[in-house]
Amino acid sequence: MAKNKRYTLDFRVWFNSDEEKLLGKGRVELLERINKTGSILQAAEGMKMSYRQAWQMVKEINERAKSPLVEKQLGGKNGGGAIVTEEGKKAIEQFHKLENNVKAFIQKESKKIKF
Amino acid sequence: MAKNKRYTLDFRVWFNSDEEKLLGKGRVELLERINKTGSILQAAEGMKMSYRQAWQMVKEINERAKSPLVEKQLGGKNGGGAIVTEEGKKAIEQFHKLENNVKAFIQKESKKIKF
Repeated sequence: MAKNKRYTLDFRVWFNSDEEKLLGKGRVELLERINKTGSILQAAEGMKMSYRQAWQMVKEINERAKSPLVEKQLGGKNGGGAIVTEEGKKAIEQFHKLENNVKAFIQKESKKIKF
Repeated sequence: MAKNKRYTLDFRVWFNSDEEKLLGKGRVELLERINKTGSILQAAEGMKMSYRQAWQMVKEINERAKSPLVEKQLGGKNGGGAIVTEEGKKAIEQFHKLENNVKAFIQKESKKIKF
């Protein structure tokens, strides 16, 4: 007796740079939060990460990217802020666009599941 | 100065059953090994898993599937073997087919990355 279940195809996508992980869902969220708050600390807190974890992640992203996606800003009213560069903003935008394209394709493929 | 890196889109797909994970890359490999060896123990060893882990995985797959993808076989020369059902074989085949379809789509999308 077959149970009444619904099968679907699910997915995750991420950008690689020379075969190494550059940006996935979590890291894109981190960039978006840095872009919004201008602060790695505030972005980290919003994601329940430590500053250290967030900073390590930013460092890895910048090392693997063609050019930095995040830049530290010295001085200013709050000291030590950070901004997302133009390349970083493009990366965020393209991640969402490609993820949506894949999502639409996956939804079509889902309908082919039969077992 | 932009470093000379190559960006690509990478992905993972898996089957869900009513929003819960049913089968991904690892579980499909487990089913394939059970199908080949007729034994959950041998399949587990081939993947460096414990028998207990493999058995838990099979149990979860069977609970979440519409009908069992693996059946235990009692008795026989080696006692306690296991077979992959017809539905299980279809699941393996469809996983690879859909994964390949997504792969081809992802490769096209990869070319759109520009930052």
